[in-house]
Amino acid sequence: MPMNQHGLSEAVRKLLKDSHTLIPAIAQDHVSGKILMLAWMNEESLAITLATKKATYWSRSRNELWVKGSTSGHFQFIKDVWLDCDGDALVLSVEQIGSACHTGELSCFHQNLLEISE
Amino acid sequence: MPMNQHGLSEAVRKLLKDSHTLIPAIAQDHVSGKILMLAWMNEESLAITLATKKATYWSRSRNELWVKGSTSGHFQFIKDVWLDCDGDALVLSVEQIGSACHTGELSCFHQNLLEISE
Repeated sequence: MPMNQHGLSEAVRKLLKDSHTLIPAIAQDHVSGKILMLAWMNEESLAITLATKKATYWSRSRNELWVKGSTSGHFQFIKDVWLDCDGDALVLSVEQIGSACHTGELSCFHQNLLEISE
Repeated sequence: MPMNQHGLSEAVRKLLKDSHTLIPAIAQDHVSGKILMLAWMNEESLAITLATKKATYWSRSRNELWVKGSTSGHFQFIKDVWLDCDGDALVLSVEQIGSACHTGELSCFHQNLLEISE
């Protein structure tokens, strides 16, 4: 199915604070609760994510849609998608294939600032 | 202790991608793993958070430092602070007093988009 066939339902669009800005999307392992990464979504990437059940972000560095895992195979299969109370942040509950981080770590959040700042 | 006495260590500052922009900070319950909210930090709020062990954000709406819980009593006591691999997002592992969300819900993420978009 071509990507441009995906659109957000009116019910979802009304909940977004601003459908024209990028909003942070947190990927969380649906079993362990581990936070895997934070990336960004625009309306199109959210629509594709909801429709395909594969996490799809907007790459700020490449300025293009980014199906997580499309080159690495490390897909994130969607179990749930939660929007926050003011409509400007998302939690994706996912099944992570392989590791989320390009370093090979399971999670991108592996630098402990309390230890580093001691 | 006046807030302006807090500063980031050089070791932490070097890990930040850009110390002059706001970065998203995810608060997560340190026991259950539940994601509670997402707010924003600048360098000063991160320094205060690390020093005081109370989550302190930068309020984008009020344009000021925001010690979470200072009016509601719903403080977030810091257990760990994790920076991601590219230095532009944070996870705060916290003990949440009361609820994180102003609606009274424990978590701000309580709108299920898969259900809403059906």
